[in-house]
Amino acid sequence: MLAALYVGNGAFRVERQEPQPPGPGEVRLEVAYVGICGTDLHITHGAMDGRVTVPAVIGHEMSGTVAAVGEAVSRWSPGDHVTVMPLDWCGHCPACTAGHQHVCQNLAFVGIDSGGAMRQTWTVSERLLVRLPPALGLQPGALAEPLAVAVHDVGRAAVLPGERVLVVGGGPIGLLIACVAAVAGADVVVSEPNAHRRSVTARLGLRTIDPVTADLGTAVDSWTGGAGVDVAFEVSGSAAGLGAATHALRVRGRLVVVAIHNQPVPVDLFRVFWRELELIGARVYERRDFERAVELLAEGAIPAGELISAVEPLERTAEAFQALASGAGVMKVLIDCQVGR
Amino acid sequence: MLAALYVGNGAFRVERQEPQPPGPGEVRLEVAYVGICGTDLHITHGAMDGRVTVPAVIGHEMSGTVAAVGEAVSRWSPGDHVTVMPLDWCGHCPACTAGHQHVCQNLAFVGIDSGGAMRQTWTVSERLLVRLPPALGLQPGALAEPLAVAVHDVGRAAVLPGERVLVVGGGPIGLLIACVAAVAGADVVVSEPNAHRRSVTARLGLRTIDPVTADLGTAVDSWTGGAGVDVAFEVSGSAAGLGAATHALRVRGRLVVVAIHNQPVPVDLFRVFWRELELIGARVYERRDFERAVELLAEGAIPAGELISAVEPLERTAEAFQALASGAGVMKVLIDCQVGR
Repeated sequence: MLAALYVGNGAFRVERQEPQPPGPGEVRLEVAYVGICGTDLHITHGAMDGRVTVPAVIGHEMSGTVAAVGEAVSRWSPGDHVTVMPLDWCGHCPACTAGHQHVCQNLAFVGIDSGGAMRQTWTVSERLLVRLPPALGLQPGALAEPLAVAVHDVGRAAVLPGERVLVVGGGPIGLLIACVAAVAGADVVVSEPNAHRRSVTARLGLRTIDPVTADLGTAVDSWTGGAGVDVAFEVSGSAAGLGAATHALRVRGRLVVVAIHNQPVPVDLFRVFWRELELIGARVYERRDFERAVELLAEGAIPAGELISAVEPLERTAEAFQALASGAGVMKVLIDCQVGR
Repeated sequence: MLAALYVGNGAFRVERQEPQPPGPGEVRLEVAYVGICGTDLHITHGAMDGRVTVPAVIGHEMSGTVAAVGEAVSRWSPGDHVTVMPLDWCGHCPACTAGHQHVCQNLAFVGIDSGGAMRQTWTVSERLLVRLPPALGLQPGALAEPLAVAVHDVGRAAVLPGERVLVVGGGPIGLLIACVAAVAGADVVVSEPNAHRRSVTARLGLRTIDPVTADLGTAVDSWTGGAGVDVAFEVSGSAAGLGAATHALRVRGRLVVVAIHNQPVPVDLFRVFWRELELIGARVYERRDFERAVELLAEGAIPAGELISAVEPLERTAEAFQALASGAGVMKVLIDCQVGR
């Protein structure tokens, strides 16, 4: 089988490897599609060299089919459609024993801290598997992982029907958050300076604002009668986006910090005090978020097709990363691992 | 009657004024004690010149006795012991109509935005009054306002019995928060570099740590078995205190930002993400917090006497501010307005 190995300095090598037979409690998958995540892009930019030892197979957004099961595996059979929830927790740290395994203090993230999905066959522990309904296509199925992030983020904010929600940043995660909030009955606006991303957002049936040409504060005041929005999601990763989100909120509004800020960022704590705001950290997802994401995809509640900009064969992994890095006109890119297996 | 007027540049003038007879819905109070708040100190340092027009009677932590009532006042009679909840809300902005009057978008704070308590008689609207039980001394009664802040802060964090609570900053508000959290059944530690403040904290029966000579992170790890504290209160107003509070929290821990940070402060949003923390803004109090504060004082649950460092006559208002500004060995200072009325 073929595997795409990230070899450092932004480069990949596609090579033939021996499939690994499943051991006890393991399942061998035939990988169908692997989505490229912003984190994968960060890895190829060297931002996570401390965690990724090259050469490495990366990739943690996937769909596939069970090909073979190891000893003591009873819940899975060849032909089952599945996705992987790429969290490997220790089970005994204070976070795990408190029931927060997804933020385990020793969490290993599959596809970063250990090998990932960008290969034709992949052998994983059965406890990472989440079932995909047979009727759900394997392309939308590969969006289960980023959609689980969005489900978790919306859940952290406890968005209620009728609430006004501002999403700052209209990349894949921002748009999935916007979709999940809309499904929850919220009135959603996405703030995004990039025209292509705004056009995708509009095709999803969501309202947009360009914060470069319009004053976001004035727009929010007009939208909310001077009250401010109930919930803001900061998905831009920029200090300006964070400031805009903080200032858009109503009294007692909730701000979910979705984008990862690697350096301490100035936060307007006076505004947090003045309006009694809440800033809420959100990281990955719990199993129920993942299962809800699969449900939403199966119900057709998320227009997954609109978000998939391109599907590239595994051999063209390097080119797919380059296209995504260029940013122009690209939302989600999938790697197709099925060809030439 | 005498009034202490703040005249700018840190100076006060005590002068004789005519008492103001109570109009309809108003009550004239004989002021007993007025506490000096950190905010009052900020005013005399010029930090709130935009809101305070001199000459101004300031002061918003008080106790007193009803002296006369105006027309249409039925709930109050001469001789009643009272305190003032110094919030004057508009009643029609989005925050008020949503039920959050205490953070009214047009809130006027009595004693800052309008005249305050540092005088012998004070005429106020009856709707600002909160009853003090006759058995409660008027000195502890003057602590109802700062204690209401602490009750509100502990309520914003929803502190549960048995939770581990770190209070960063052992001034009057920090210690009141620590006391209220302890009454709620929490296991409390106060981090405070000032030796006098630590000694007061110890006299209140609370554990302390000196973050200068001990490593707070190591101490928290040892206290919590490596988990981190459930709740932290940032009451120091320093970037270092904010950082220490952020890093002391367990997964899903709650950080209440109590101190007022007038400038944006770098916040470790990576830690907020990594541990799914919540940052919670808290401002003043709701009426139920004020009433709970009075209850706690009446029950003797808060050792108010230990917190009152000095009681100075109204004529010595300037000296009382100077003593507080010097910081040495002083916790709460009360102005006694009863002499020579």
